[in-house]
Amino acid sequence: MERLQRWRSHGGWQEVWKHQSRETGTPMEFSVFLPDAANNAGDPRPVVWYLSGLTCNWANVTEKGEFRAACARHGLIMVAPDTSPRGEGVPDDPDGAYDFGLGAGFYVDATVEPFATHYRMRSYIERELPELVAQHFSADLGRQGIMGHSMGGHGALTIALRNPDRFRAVSAFAPICAPSQCPWGQKALGGYLGDDPAQLAEYDACRMIEAGARVPEILVDQGAADGFLDTQLMPDALRGACDKAGIDLTLNLHDGYDHSYYFISSFMTTQLDWHAARLT
Amino acid sequence: MERLQRWRSHGGWQEVWKHQSRETGTPMEFSVFLPDAANNAGDPRPVVWYLSGLTCNWANVTEKGEFRAACARHGLIMVAPDTSPRGEGVPDDPDGAYDFGLGAGFYVDATVEPFATHYRMRSYIERELPELVAQHFSADLGRQGIMGHSMGGHGALTIALRNPDRFRAVSAFAPICAPSQCPWGQKALGGYLGDDPAQLAEYDACRMIEAGARVPEILVDQGAADGFLDTQLMPDALRGACDKAGIDLTLNLHDGYDHSYYFISSFMTTQLDWHAARLT
Repeated sequence: MERLQRWRSHGGWQEVWKHQSRETGTPMEFSVFLPDAANNAGDPRPVVWYLSGLTCNWANVTEKGEFRAACARHGLIMVAPDTSPRGEGVPDDPDGAYDFGLGAGFYVDATVEPFATHYRMRSYIERELPELVAQHFSADLGRQGIMGHSMGGHGALTIALRNPDRFRAVSAFAPICAPSQCPWGQKALGGYLGDDPAQLAEYDACRMIEAGARVPEILVDQGAADGFLDTQLMPDALRGACDKAGIDLTLNLHDGYDHSYYFISSFMTTQLDWHAARLT
Repeated sequence: MERLQRWRSHGGWQEVWKHQSRETGTPMEFSVFLPDAANNAGDPRPVVWYLSGLTCNWANVTEKGEFRAACARHGLIMVAPDTSPRGEGVPDDPDGAYDFGLGAGFYVDATVEPFATHYRMRSYIERELPELVAQHFSADLGRQGIMGHSMGGHGALTIALRNPDRFRAVSAFAPICAPSQCPWGQKALGGYLGDDPAQLAEYDACRMIEAGARVPEILVDQGAADGFLDTQLMPDALRGACDKAGIDLTLNLHDGYDHSYYFISSFMTTQLDWHAARLT
């Protein structure tokens, strides 16, 4: 692990780290905000994971997410991983499209070649990166929350549903709720996993809930003016699945807000307050 | 005036506008945050001007400045202009350096050709843009504050000192305090204004104070780990000038903080709270 950058910010340190990943077989970068409570001698601090959306890496939320003030106030560590493997030998979308390949790992372990070798973002986020965070930072992995945006909201929901004992809180901004029913998800899941419906269902939050996966509660903020709302995100499908399953879904629809970081940053503090109430 | 972009954010609208400037002779863009208090029927709202630093345009602070939550809470309009004229026919630094020409207007009215024609940022900020803001938004120009970063901190200080009746509050992040004594300022002021010491003194906050210019109080936040602190920024010179003049300078030196938006965003809320206490 090599620390690439470090800035003092909001009463903590915003850092960027690089390491060689055993899962992706590539160098990977992530950002981590360490509130002073996690730097000084004291109790290890809870960790909130932020999974980014299509085209993003750690920098988008780190620069525009407006999360540090709330994390410093609550003493939360925030980790923002990349969204795909990158670098020499990593295959991309054959047409260079933004919604598959680089920047679009969809938090799956690919089974279809040529993607299966490097596109192992599920195992990277679920197994490898938590180990590194536990080793290098004063982090209490007994208290974890997870959130994400769009494709990263899909990632947060599916990873939390798959690991209900690990995360005390899960939330999302404009998540892709039913990837097997929308064009982004169909293209990506099909490209990484092939046509086996059983495999696809393992990466679809609504299908997972229908098949019995459970978390006690979910918080979602969604812009009502988000151009992807009906075609790609489908929060109504999540509401339907949660209602049937008895999952306590808080789905806040915000008039006028779109899919951008101007939306995310507007509700970051309330989401982090919600996580903090469950983690601290 | 043409609105280029508009995002719902933090209970207001973040907008970007473009217009043909009579002062610079070029199209100019600026961003404006309009809290709902300024959109709905009601009293016109106070305006805070944010002047950006070298290489920036409206986007840097608009994306990374973390000002909207505080502006929405206080009902403040925030205007972020560009830092220079741009476009066809606008001369740049002959070597393409970052500290002169495009992105580096230094908030002066240039007198040296080929810069005198377009580089009229002082008149643009002091005269033209306030007229447009008054015409197009529900703004109370009887209640204005001004702040800025680095070169923009220099701009905020000099514009406030030149117009003490217009601004009820002036603050800065890591301002260039004595441009006639530092390399950035000497290059820029010399390039735009020539070698006349009298002209240079009109754009140097410390010289202006020594010559009798007054504001009642100034707030400055400065990172102690800012690599430009001693060579370019010189807050001690501002402290000396303010002490002699009886200006109430609050100069907060922050351990570990550098010159970046990670620093600016950390103290944006406290600066805006300070402005709001004087404007609302």
